[in-house]
Amino acid sequence: MKKTAVAPSNIAFTKYWGKKDEKLRIPENGSISMNLSNLLTTTTVEFLDEYKKDEIHLPGEIDRVIKHLDRIRKIAGIHQKAKVVSENNFPTGTGLSSSASGFAALTVAASFAASLQLSEKELSILARQGSGSACRSIPNGFVEWFDGNTSETSYAIQIFKEDYYDIADVVVVASSQKKDVSTSVGQKTAESSPFMAVRLSRMKKKNEDLKKLIQKRDFESFGELVEQEALELHAIMLTQKPPLIYFKPETIVVIKAVEKWRIQGIPVYWTLNTGQDVHLICQGKDKEKVATLARTLSVTKDVIINLPSSGAHLVKEHLF
Amino acid sequence: MKKTAVAPSNIAFTKYWGKKDEKLRIPENGSISMNLSNLLTTTTVEFLDEYKKDEIHLPGEIDRVIKHLDRIRKIAGIHQKAKVVSENNFPTGTGLSSSASGFAALTVAASFAASLQLSEKELSILARQGSGSACRSIPNGFVEWFDGNTSETSYAIQIFKEDYYDIADVVVVASSQKKDVSTSVGQKTAESSPFMAVRLSRMKKKNEDLKKLIQKRDFESFGELVEQEALELHAIMLTQKPPLIYFKPETIVVIKAVEKWRIQGIPVYWTLNTGQDVHLICQGKDKEKVATLARTLSVTKDVIINLPSSGAHLVKEHLF
Repeated sequence: MKKTAVAPSNIAFTKYWGKKDEKLRIPENGSISMNLSNLLTTTTVEFLDEYKKDEIHLPGEIDRVIKHLDRIRKIAGIHQKAKVVSENNFPTGTGLSSSASGFAALTVAASFAASLQLSEKELSILARQGSGSACRSIPNGFVEWFDGNTSETSYAIQIFKEDYYDIADVVVVASSQKKDVSTSVGQKTAESSPFMAVRLSRMKKKNEDLKKLIQKRDFESFGELVEQEALELHAIMLTQKPPLIYFKPETIVVIKAVEKWRIQGIPVYWTLNTGQDVHLICQGKDKEKVATLARTLSVTKDVIINLPSSGAHLVKEHLF
Repeated sequence: MKKTAVAPSNIAFTKYWGKKDEKLRIPENGSISMNLSNLLTTTTVEFLDEYKKDEIHLPGEIDRVIKHLDRIRKIAGIHQKAKVVSENNFPTGTGLSSSASGFAALTVAASFAASLQLSEKELSILARQGSGSACRSIPNGFVEWFDGNTSETSYAIQIFKEDYYDIADVVVVASSQKKDVSTSVGQKTAESSPFMAVRLSRMKKKNEDLKKLIQKRDFESFGELVEQEALELHAIMLTQKPPLIYFKPETIVVIKAVEKWRIQGIPVYWTLNTGQDVHLICQGKDKEKVATLARTLSVTKDVIINLPSSGAHLVKEHLF
């Protein structure tokens, strides 16, 4: 059976960094994110007796994809090999993470292709095992990923529908350099930061605060908290052993520009993961203005405007 | 009486950030530094009845200098106004801090001009009240500043002579932008970082470790600790409320280059305060090689090679 799914990438307002369980990808703390309307992966999966081995056509780690197919085959009790074709609607190698959208699309397409009848929760748990943050790309809109203590309790749910809060994520692609250290490797030593225990002791309250600010649509306080959280993430990474300096010269240029624009009266905040792309968070009405400003920066290679979007879902048109 | 003093700037291997007493400039933690042979301030001070008001010729905050002269006049029991002329041997406005060398030179010149007979400890205590880190520019060589709990217990002493350890500080002046937030203002909110208490609880041991590494001349471990400490300082600043992002695009360029050079086999480490100048710490034998590499960077405006040096001292030649 052949199935195709589309899944969005997501931007974390509170971050996933450090794991309670390395293999099961159970995070140290819960996190809150928004699915992104314009950073999408489309994946078609077909299981057939004719395939002698898994035939994987996508940019990324083939081994990790086959492992994920094995998980789904095991649950479904099938043994057919699969053909997988996947496409991003954004350029690869720009530092834009496609693992969240990629594993969410793969999970939905493959589980339906294997005739599994999975709930949203089960799909989220499954996606998480492929790539942690992929579990947040399963539900619609604004999402919370519970850290949990077991595989069954670590999954994401919708906390607000995509039309609840009219904000935008204007992604500034600022450089095409590759990361020095992969996110998976960097996460493994999160505990080596002397500040990690303090961070973790405060995450529950931070997530509660953030949900309240989304609910109240208090944009200024929301933006400040999002920025503080990104800075805290980088403070942890800078103090790990060995230190991780994911800041690039280009990201500092963008961050400093945002500070300036805000002083000039435009309510815009930033967040940043381990890549060089900076996410500018603004109100929906300001998205074009912010995008125009972002394009004026010398370091900007591309600007992608995102609104809150639905999560992973099946579509009718296949890639092969 | 007219006196002239020369004082060096110093580079902190463990940093001064946060104060127990704002007015007396008593720091939250002790710190260890090295005096720098080639970042010097020369200051001539003369107290005379003829002067109707203090006549201050120097780049910097005039009010703070007059306040410092008042401190010295009070101790000496004199009332004459002073003429003060001061010069740096490095360009001002490059982000290179001149307050340490400036207040150390002023303290020595003015106290001798006022006929005070002060011990090194007393000079250090006095310099500290003008500018905290100036107290470290009084003794020779490698210096430790005790945090103390009172003005009398917060001063710097020599821990190793300048010729004990053959290392160099190759300063890369990378940009001439001004700081957004002054160091004095930034320090006031150090406690607002959720990580400050953890940092402070670990500083005593860090200083002990650092002294042992200097004593053993274990350059690799020394350099790693120095770099980790600079990163920890910035982690604190990034997580203050409001956040302080003292990183500049240019500093990231230099830091990343150092990482690369080290992988290529050159033992060189960096440290950074709140300015944009990056201090490259290397062994004496490598200083020319490191300086040559630093000059190849597109962001480099100037390179200044420093060896461990003597502290503040009187000289015979006056500036007026």
